[in-house]
Amino acid sequence: MVKNIPFTKMHGLGNCYIYIDLISRPLEMGTYAETAVKVADQNTGIGADGMILILPSNKADVFMRIFNKDGSEAKNCGNGLRCVAKYAFEHNLVKEQKFTIETLGGIVEAEIILAGQHVERVTIDMGAPILERKNIPMAGNPVGRPVIKESVFLEGKGYSVTAVSMGNPHALFFVDNIEEAPIHELGPILADTHPLFPEGVNVGFIEVLTDNTIEYRVWERGSGITQACGTGACAAVVAGILENRLKKDQNITVHLSGGDLDIIWSSDTEHVLMTGAATTICEGTFYL
Amino acid sequence: MVKNIPFTKMHGLGNCYIYIDLISRPLEMGTYAETAVKVADQNTGIGADGMILILPSNKADVFMRIFNKDGSEAKNCGNGLRCVAKYAFEHNLVKEQKFTIETLGGIVEAEIILAGQHVERVTIDMGAPILERKNIPMAGNPVGRPVIKESVFLEGKGYSVTAVSMGNPHALFFVDNIEEAPIHELGPILADTHPLFPEGVNVGFIEVLTDNTIEYRVWERGSGITQACGTGACAAVVAGILENRLKKDQNITVHLSGGDLDIIWSSDTEHVLMTGAATTICEGTFYL
Repeated sequence: MVKNIPFTKMHGLGNCYIYIDLISRPLEMGTYAETAVKVADQNTGIGADGMILILPSNKADVFMRIFNKDGSEAKNCGNGLRCVAKYAFEHNLVKEQKFTIETLGGIVEAEIILAGQHVERVTIDMGAPILERKNIPMAGNPVGRPVIKESVFLEGKGYSVTAVSMGNPHALFFVDNIEEAPIHELGPILADTHPLFPEGVNVGFIEVLTDNTIEYRVWERGSGITQACGTGACAAVVAGILENRLKKDQNITVHLSGGDLDIIWSSDTEHVLMTGAATTICEGTFYL
Repeated sequence: MVKNIPFTKMHGLGNCYIYIDLISRPLEMGTYAETAVKVADQNTGIGADGMILILPSNKADVFMRIFNKDGSEAKNCGNGLRCVAKYAFEHNLVKEQKFTIETLGGIVEAEIILAGQHVERVTIDMGAPILERKNIPMAGNPVGRPVIKESVFLEGKGYSVTAVSMGNPHALFFVDNIEEAPIHELGPILADTHPLFPEGVNVGFIEVLTDNTIEYRVWERGSGITQACGTGACAAVVAGILENRLKKDQNITVHLSGGDLDIIWSSDTEHVLMTGAATTICEGTFYL
């Protein structure tokens, strides 16, 4: 028996998910993992990076659960949070422009920016960066201190690295020219199997263009080069401030392959605020 | 200004397109090529192998135009024809179970097979195979004769090839075990640049399983290995009959990576009939 599943496909900087609203109407489907694999399939499904469910929450205004295209569940997703916020406001799941979203990674604050009736951009409070070496986690000493401009030798060459966790670990390298960044050399070596990063690491490269603009490219652990990584853009700005290349409390525009994000590391709260677009691609009914 | 484009995503053996019905309602959009690129994009569009428009025809019941995901226009597509036939019948664009579809490659007859109100499978008359060497086209002599079990030497090894055009050229190789077919060896050599096939060729491998079942794998020119090739399945059956491995007027089930097709080469008409599934994935509105 075919089940009719209402869906919305949305993207943030090209990172796209099938959004299913289980607040407005409960739905009968298979397990979430099975459904994610089916809707995300490029050939026989709608096609996306995964499926995001929008559910009622006891602790926040809405609850989001993220399933990758292989059915595994993810804790959090910066691009997905912006889309959930847009969806929730435009579909009257929330009343105010500022509200909270529960994720498996914790509760997040969102604020939408309107263009007429439409949500055009969304600010997400990404929390405080984690800087202690052992909590990133990164091997070596001293375990309780930040890792700023540390010399590392990789394949016989010396590099300077700053490490930041935004819930997931990032190794950041500043370069003079982003086009010549050694992403294909360092990405595969560091991301998934290097002893320095026991849980793997997202490998980011940054060119500082002006006082408030940077260019950022990333090799994500488990994925390789991707068009956009929201936590990576935040980590890049934090690393730039730690290395005295950028300033706290200033809006920094991060150019990614998939588009731009605006990032502020606030000295009031120590939290990082990320602002960027969220786009509705299509909506309709999926025949499961 | 955002334009609302009603769409249906359908697939035949995993070969998926965004179908836009311009008979039921005219729509304002950019050029068809531009729209195809946008709707077919996996990240910022719905995601598909391309876009198929269903238009009014002066010569047939409906007219289909096929745009690949890069915006180029294709002449014909067996998997797309089955989906257009299902769509046309289920949306009352045609009244009878047997009707005609105009394509840039000519007019094609379609017949739908119902399961209740639903079209489950569709038979497409794929026309007569083209067997003369010069019309396939394949280099060499004699130009006006079929190419059956011809010895060819490729990379210093000998192979036996039969060549068939079903509107597009196919080189067919019979093997004892499909898992050991030299698809990665012969595909790249023959498909796009070999002097034997001046317009390129789809390189097919066939294992005969029983009197009426074959296994078929294909390396398509311009694409590499694909899950399903409707004209290739037809060419494989024709080649099997030409090599006396299969029989005319018998239903031959062709197993492809994406699913099964049933093929008959009729001695009455010399036409090849292809029957297979057509599946609706989802429908809705795309915001162009």
